[in-house]
Amino acid sequence: MNTRPYVFPGATAAASLRQLRASAPLVHCLTNDVVQSFTANVLLALGASPAMVTDPAEAAQFSAVADALLVNVGTLTRPHAEAIHAAIHAANQAGKPWVLDPVAVGGLSWRTEFCLGLIKLKPAAIRGNASEIRALSGLSASGRGVDSGDDSLSALPAAQQLALGTGAVVAVTGETDYVTDGERSWSVPGGHLMMTRIVGTGCSLSAVVAAFAALPGKRLDNVTAACRVMSCAGERACAVVKGPGSFTPEFLDNLYLMREEWLNGENIG
Amino acid sequence: MNTRPYVFPGATAAASLRQLRASAPLVHCLTNDVVQSFTANVLLALGASPAMVTDPAEAAQFSAVADALLVNVGTLTRPHAEAIHAAIHAANQAGKPWVLDPVAVGGLSWRTEFCLGLIKLKPAAIRGNASEIRALSGLSASGRGVDSGDDSLSALPAAQQLALGTGAVVAVTGETDYVTDGERSWSVPGGHLMMTRIVGTGCSLSAVVAAFAALPGKRLDNVTAACRVMSCAGERACAVVKGPGSFTPEFLDNLYLMREEWLNGENIG
Amino acid sequence: MNTRPYVFPGATAAASLRQLRASAPLVHCLTNDVVQSFTANVLLALGASPAMVTDPAEAAQFSAVADALLVNVGTLTRPHAEAIHAAIHAANQAGKPWVLDPVAVGGLSWRTEFCLGLIKLKPAAIRGNASEIRALSGLSASGRGVDSGDDSLSALPAAQQLALGTGAVVAVTGETDYVTDGERSWSVPGGHLMMTRIVGTGCSLSAVVAAFAALPGKRLDNVTAACRVMSCAGERACAVVKGPGSFTPEFLDNLYLMREEWLNGENIG
Repeated sequence: MNTRPYVFPGATAAASLRQLRASAPLVHCLTNDVVQSFTANVLLALGASPAMVTDPAEAAQFSAVADALLVNVGTLTRPHAEAIHAAIHAANQAGKPWVLDPVAVGGLSWRTEFCLGLIKLKPAAIRGNASEIRALSGLSASGRGVDSGDDSLSALPAAQQLALGTGAVVAVTGETDYVTDGERSWSVPGGHLMMTRIVGTGCSLSAVVAAFAALPGKRLDNVTAACRVMSCAGERACAVVKGPGSFTPEFLDNLYLMREEWLNGENIG
Repeated sequence: MNTRPYVFPGATAAASLRQLRASAPLVHCLTNDVVQSFTANVLLALGASPAMVTDPAEAAQFSAVADALLVNVGTLTRPHAEAIHAAIHAANQAGKPWVLDPVAVGGLSWRTEFCLGLIKLKPAAIRGNASEIRALSGLSASGRGVDSGDDSLSALPAAQQLALGTGAVVAVTGETDYVTDGERSWSVPGGHLMMTRIVGTGCSLSAVVAAFAALPGKRLDNVTAACRVMSCAGERACAVVKGPGSFTPEFLDNLYLMREEWLNGENIG
Repeated sequence: MNTRPYVFPGATAAASLRQLRASAPLVHCLTNDVVQSFTANVLLALGASPAMVTDPAEAAQFSAVADALLVNVGTLTRPHAEAIHAAIHAANQAGKPWVLDPVAVGGLSWRTEFCLGLIKLKPAAIRGNASEIRALSGLSASGRGVDSGDDSLSALPAAQQLALGTGAVVAVTGETDYVTDGERSWSVPGGHLMMTRIVGTGCSLSAVVAAFAALPGKRLDNVTAACRVMSCAGERACAVVKGPGSFTPEFLDNLYLMREEWLNGENIG
């Protein structure tokens, strides 16, 4: 379980991106208050279509119509928890994939218990940092908050265990991302320290994972493609900007303009 | 009713903009969670003053003091619905105009019923896409979410009917915007496909409509001026940026710097 | 009490900034819905670590772990008020500083009463505009909303009275900021009119005040350093941008790149 996974091929990422742009999936985002605008703009730049519908009854109605559902517990409240349950139930009934972003799980009690309940509801994918994935898998975590104190590779065994236990594709992200279905795993290089200085890069990646989880074909590959598309836009932006303020416009432009050959990772700088 | 309306004159838009900058209306925004920051920044860039006050009792107190009220149902919840009713009642009592943005009406049941109730409460203006305006007017809609599946011109008859039935000025927006009081109508060209790739361009237009609805003079012209000011900033920004990330700063700068002669639409590119 | 305070020395600001970057304080932000993303990005750009945890039980758990707590009442609701009380109680129990941003206090009744209760709970610092500080101090205010109708210097006596009455360091901000512990006071020049055209510059300053309030050493100096760091980034950005849209990326980049010698205020333009 501990050998370092192969780097995900750019051509496979490109094939998923082509499908995404052709189908423009509608993603229902039940995400946290801090990142809603950035998340919507990331999905729009890529060619997907976001919507945030938060009343429990409407959330259920909408999840049955949307192509995928994102659940992010960053600013979880009791009413949001109710909407999340209603939306997941409706998505499962309609056969639509849903994705979990377990923000700060392990560090805070209520959301940890809440998310340990959610992973029994058949998520298509789970995207978190090392401490969050460890906490969900039952292994110990060291995080105080949204930033992980663990290296992503060291959490790969926890991710594999979580994938096998839930049936979800699990992405543990950091400077390098690792994505696994429990049996096969990929690595995605390209993270950059500056991306930890902009709020929402991880949260919006989870929304992109939801968009890619709506595509036909191998889910492991589609989820890994989501990670690669985002790391590619990020590394290209970091190569030309002077700080996190100018990163955001450049990052979104790169998502919008992304060419398939960029995903091979050979023409940076 | 089906002839194509004349293009709104730039000089009339410029006159309204001059009034707006001189009076700096205070706009109470009860809008959705996704676009609050962008909406505030759009109003500030133009020279208006935004505020978001969401507790029902405070919302009522504030709407009586503000110059206009925006109601947007994008992320409607039960507590927001209560605040909206309190604020509309107070605005009407104080003689202040209020504007409705019926996000995703037609596609979701509860908000459709809610907005069909609201339009009986004498909105000064209603701003939506074609499917939303059709749904409010009682004609059928094809939208799944916030993006309209209908062409804006084809929804002009629905907009006219809605205007006559409610007394509101109705703006149905798209690649070209159409604004009507039921008897007279204007068209506003200048929309650009890239503007559909940034969240909040429609929602912030509704806030700008509220700001312009606070001005003295012909409401039809003032509301149409709001549409023209936004389309002008948008087309100028689209002409020089490479993607939706760099669009946002450029768009806001154009609102801030806007010169009256730009509104004639003759000096793009 | 009415002599104009001395300008805060750049070297003292630089010393506080060095400490902030070395310790990377974790700031729990209970702030308003409009500015959450910008606030998080400001803290991240400076090297601090933001988190927003809004359920009352989790907010209490998190405030005991975080290094400082920000309370901003801009979009106060009953559930937020409950979370604020729980978080303040936990922060005080754990000996962690908390900071109040009394948005629109004086203009709206419920939040005024609420904040007059909060200032009895030993805030480490209070940051507001002139009309807000006057209203909290018991002197009359003229504000309708978030923008102050008063000059910041004229509110310095109210700030001093509020500081003496609460034990908090009080910052009254405007074109020039004044910071006082009731006995000693500093002035911080460098504000720019354009910064009133971007939402969240004041609110994010309050979050930065919370981050600096977590540092060891003289609290008056640390809070004043927060004001100076922000005014420095703002004046540098305003010197090169053409409008409020391009201000935001440039401002965040300046926070990220800030060099200690910039704080002396001698190399602008």
